[in-house]
Amino acid sequence: MKFELLTKDPKTRARRGRLHTPHGVVETPIFMPVGTQATVKSMTPEQLKDLQVEILLCNSYHLFLRPGHETVSRLGGLHQFMGWNRPILTDSGGYQVFSLSSLRDISEDGVRFQSHLDGSTYFLSPETAVDIQMALGSDIMMILDDCLAYPASHFDSEKSMRRSLAWAERCWKRFRTRSDTASDPLAAFGGTPPFQGGDVSPLKRGTAAKRQGVARALFGIVQGGIYHDLRKISTDHLVGMGFPGYAIGGLAVGEPKPLMYEVIERVGPELPEDKPRYLMGVGTPADLVECVALGVDMFDCVMPTRHARNGWLFTRDGHIVIKHAKYREDPAPIDESCRCPVCATYSRAYLRHLFIANEILSSVLNTIHNLHFYLDTIHRIRQFIEFHRYEEFLTEMRRTGVR
Amino acid sequence: MKFELLTKDPKTRARRGRLHTPHGVVETPIFMPVGTQATVKSMTPEQLKDLQVEILLCNSYHLFLRPGHETVSRLGGLHQFMGWNRPILTDSGGYQVFSLSSLRDISEDGVRFQSHLDGSTYFLSPETAVDIQMALGSDIMMILDDCLAYPASHFDSEKSMRRSLAWAERCWKRFRTRSDTASDPLAAFGGTPPFQGGDVSPLKRGTAAKRQGVARALFGIVQGGIYHDLRKISTDHLVGMGFPGYAIGGLAVGEPKPLMYEVIERVGPELPEDKPRYLMGVGTPADLVECVALGVDMFDCVMPTRHARNGWLFTRDGHIVIKHAKYREDPAPIDESCRCPVCATYSRAYLRHLFIANEILSSVLNTIHNLHFYLDTIHRIRQFIEFHRYEEFLTEMRRTGVR
Repeated sequence: MKFELLTKDPKTRARRGRLHTPHGVVETPIFMPVGTQATVKSMTPEQLKDLQVEILLCNSYHLFLRPGHETVSRLGGLHQFMGWNRPILTDSGGYQVFSLSSLRDISEDGVRFQSHLDGSTYFLSPETAVDIQMALGSDIMMILDDCLAYPASHFDSEKSMRRSLAWAERCWKRFRTRSDTASDPLAAFGGTPPFQGGDVSPLKRGTAAKRQGVARALFGIVQGGIYHDLRKISTDHLVGMGFPGYAIGGLAVGEPKPLMYEVIERVGPELPEDKPRYLMGVGTPADLVECVALGVDMFDCVMPTRHARNGWLFTRDGHIVIKHAKYREDPAPIDESCRCPVCATYSRAYLRHLFIANEILSSVLNTIHNLHFYLDTIHRIRQFIEFHRYEEFLTEMRRTGVR
Repeated sequence: MKFELLTKDPKTRARRGRLHTPHGVVETPIFMPVGTQATVKSMTPEQLKDLQVEILLCNSYHLFLRPGHETVSRLGGLHQFMGWNRPILTDSGGYQVFSLSSLRDISEDGVRFQSHLDGSTYFLSPETAVDIQMALGSDIMMILDDCLAYPASHFDSEKSMRRSLAWAERCWKRFRTRSDTASDPLAAFGGTPPFQGGDVSPLKRGTAAKRQGVARALFGIVQGGIYHDLRKISTDHLVGMGFPGYAIGGLAVGEPKPLMYEVIERVGPELPEDKPRYLMGVGTPADLVECVALGVDMFDCVMPTRHARNGWLFTRDGHIVIKHAKYREDPAPIDESCRCPVCATYSRAYLRHLFIANEILSSVLNTIHNLHFYLDTIHRIRQFIEFHRYEEFLTEMRRTGVR
């Protein structure tokens, strides 16, 4: 994988970049919709492409349990399985093991857990976490890390952070071993392609990059909770290992927003400038705007898709809850200023009707709108960075809310 | 509305025709997907157009209760409400009143019933049934009829048939009165357009027909259960009234298939050749093939869409039940010979995974496939009629199953 830093905003830490992956190019900053079970809920890949989605996040934990990573592998890998030929990032499964399953036992070796589906017992080690993601055929993989709930003491946070570091070492070793062997079908490619230029369409760039054999990547994850000294230790160790990208984990788990921003502000400068930075599981549109100013390049969050299914729709004047009776005969679109295909065609009244009537199309149309809102926010973010006027954009968004 | 009879098969009663409606042309024989609550479940209008769906059926009963026909009317009518600019046929609501609601009271005047949603009481008369469909802005409306369950005695069937005839008179009167007044926004158009030729795309033809003001239509419905004498009385009376189209109702309610075919075979020749014939609520792909041979032009059925959501998929080798364990790692498409976009992209293994994981995309993809199967069957039916070889097609389909 190769990361190009295209330009930096002069007054904030905002960056415009470009990720080259085996399945094509991703412009940064980027928002990655979540495709938990090998589908972004209610969306066809065609609809995602129409929305200009560039990369998806899929959850190893879910795919490991069902249908199984080996099944996916035998069916040609995750991209072929779900009909998505653009990049995919997978998490390690660690977060879901800690949040969804009945935890049985965590040791230095790994974590034994019970499936949330049927209670059967599995063991996830740093090595199997990499193997699972390898089998899925992910473009960007994540190390297995130990995830703590908030709040956690300094003592617990340090223990967890150091365990995560040990696991990071083992993941990195496994990844490099696997990448060197013929068992990884992409290993044969190796290396990174020359810069493709900015005038090629994402799909064509994807094909070109794949032909030229961009390598898959494994990202490290900085842990340490809300403790700056622990974050520093974690960052230094991971950077020393030389990962091709770094995530900031363990945030958006219940801590106050200012504390989250503070951690990012402190960790950011310690990360190498020429590697992408990924803030896991974040966040609201305002979080995107704020964290880009702190140097974050990549985001993922279930918020736009999950909220869509619950009838919570983003607009430039704040959100609306579509089931509200006041929309019963409202002929206006969700958002007058929105250029998404849903706002071009449907009234709030119709979307309310679909929601109240429990129609599947409600989830479909609401998801299209919310994803468009997030991606449009990202596109505006990119443009203001390119113009070197991100600070003005940030100030305006803080004044009015993200609009 | 205008119906053109384009050609007839020489050895069966199969017909190729063309319906001109205010929202465009519909080729016959036609299958109409069901959009009960102003949406074909899980489908966007765009996906329906990609499937070459030419006309939808929507249910007055459901829309009357929620969101209300007056609400739909104030929002510009059903087409604008649901973002569908091709023709819509609405039923009268009678069938659902009899099958879904708690019946309170049926009289010569109409039927008092309780909503299946909240138990509140409504009254549906022949006049209000027409008014509701007028308010929705339907292209083809249906008279209110009295629907009996199977089996029913000759006595009950006659009583019900005669009530339906009286209601048909009142519906027809209401329809003509409303069509003559300015309160019907489409009444101003009147008349039928000259033949548009066969080389114009359906959408363009739709626009042309709308510009030239094709009138909306009200269809009569032949009743009389399984009794040929009653069917004859019903047919004669309705034909005497001069409806622009005729439905055969009260079938597919539990009677044996041969009995259903026999009724259609007997009623068909009694109906005017220059008017379209619509068999309500039918049926399986085999039913379509059989009933076209008996002279039926129009069909609707929830089978392809409902079965899709239950994981029952049509193929040329019979149906498959996608949740079956044997498809767990099956890399084949649903049907090797199918040219739908789902079979072009996805494996049975992926579709099984989506179904088992209870993903919305399961309903979406399965519905696309099943609707494609039905419409492909209709397209093949049309072609064999045009070639005057429908009998051979019928014989072959009877031998192998519809494939």
